[in-house]
Amino acid sequence: MTTQRDKAAAFRQLHAGPRLLVLPNAWDVASAKVIAAAGAPAIATSSAGVAFVLGFPDGERISRDEMLGMVRRIAAAVEVPVSADVEAGYGATADAAARTARAVLEAGAVGMNLEDAEGGELLPVDLHVERIRAARSAATSFGVPVVINGRTDAFADRKLTPDARVEEAIRRANAYLAAGADCAFVPFVTQPEDIARLAREIRGPINILAKPGSPPLSELERLGVRRVSVGSAIALAAYGLARRAARELLDSGTYQAMTDAIPFAEMQQLLR
Amino acid sequence: MTTQRDKAAAFRQLHAGPRLLVLPNAWDVASAKVIAAAGAPAIATSSAGVAFVLGFPDGERISRDEMLGMVRRIAAAVEVPVSADVEAGYGATADAAARTARAVLEAGAVGMNLEDAEGGELLPVDLHVERIRAARSAATSFGVPVVINGRTDAFADRKLTPDARVEEAIRRANAYLAAGADCAFVPFVTQPEDIARLAREIRGPINILAKPGSPPLSELERLGVRRVSVGSAIALAAYGLARRAARELLDSGTYQAMTDAIPFAEMQQLLR
Repeated sequence: MTTQRDKAAAFRQLHAGPRLLVLPNAWDVASAKVIAAAGAPAIATSSAGVAFVLGFPDGERISRDEMLGMVRRIAAAVEVPVSADVEAGYGATADAAARTARAVLEAGAVGMNLEDAEGGELLPVDLHVERIRAARSAATSFGVPVVINGRTDAFADRKLTPDARVEEAIRRANAYLAAGADCAFVPFVTQPEDIARLAREIRGPINILAKPGSPPLSELERLGVRRVSVGSAIALAAYGLARRAARELLDSGTYQAMTDAIPFAEMQQLLR
Repeated sequence: MTTQRDKAAAFRQLHAGPRLLVLPNAWDVASAKVIAAAGAPAIATSSAGVAFVLGFPDGERISRDEMLGMVRRIAAAVEVPVSADVEAGYGATADAAARTARAVLEAGAVGMNLEDAEGGELLPVDLHVERIRAARSAATSFGVPVVINGRTDAFADRKLTPDARVEEAIRRANAYLAAGADCAFVPFVTQPEDIARLAREIRGPINILAKPGSPPLSELERLGVRRVSVGSAIALAAYGLARRAARELLDSGTYQAMTDAIPFAEMQQLLR
């Protein structure tokens, strides 16, 4: 039987290469089962996707308990390691980060994202360093070496110039890695030269957020990226299909958009 | 402000024509919002879809509370009437049907499906008649004229010959309508001549389950069908897209299957 400690170690090892760690994010149990069956080595949740399922916009409008309720269901359903996107930790304090880390582990996950921005504002770097230390310490007390994906939203800070964003992301990522993060997550970076510089100057594995329009994974790997996730992109594409299917049914009375489905019996089998 | 009674009346009226009532079933809040925005006059839930989201196979493995927890979120999120698929009512007794009807209304829905089969076996017709009476009586006590979609699984009964299935469906549907159902739901019928006979001999509106391969809605309407739903078909198509997107990302490192998505900002706006 694989223990939670073993799963955390296995998930950490996936960041060490040689292959790029590719995480097609899930947003509910069925998507997690489908994505794991497609060959994903781990399941990362999309916090936006889980929020959409339960009726909230993205951005900590959902509660910690509701977010982790879905993470718990997913972790109970798949064999592979699960990493929980828990936004900025549901409270901008070190104490909140510690409580959230403990709750992530209690839910059965072995990894967590922790952002350094709340309400569109970057937190002071020293505060987020304290938060990462607090999350690490809570996990050590719990007895599971959680994989912390320390996220900086420097590239979303409109007060910074493009050059300053790169500098700020590197400074923050290195501070978070030094404080106990295992991987540095830098979403919203798009230029290959910026990605290459992040990979060179950040002293640990880096996670990039990809979406349609991003360089293909082979190019991201060549630039030095170690982990790629897609946030809510697959969820939003699935809901895009739902919209096309509904419009077609209502407007034309036909079923073309529904044809390429997972057979009912196969989904039943996946969830048994 | 629209009361729950008004919504129940409006939903009942949608069964009276002249247009076919088309219900592209939802399975979580985001799908319900998307389908309502696509123009659906009401939202019917897919019990299988909700079960898949929360990690259960179809068939009452999920609890009444978990099923209605999602119905409550959906009913709170959309303006249009919501009809809850509550399988066989979570217990094969009249008392269970009454408790479930009350819980459906407490969750904010104004319609409910109630099946006459559990574990693949048809319940005695008299028992299901009692169950529909009990659900109606509970709704009357609650003060909301819930729209009961009395479902018969006669077409899934392998002990019946094809001809006997049609006879049994007609007998049961008429008994359920006489007991207080507002609409008769006959899933799994596929032959146009059978559908036409059901529409002729059932003394009330009939609901057919459509999927890819079914006659188009214009043909179902011509055959006398008043309401069409699609069960988990849209959900299964959405998860099919998730599978294609995950496989493509893992195997080819590209994003083609994710391209036709609902934009993030638009989903945020929908859920605000």
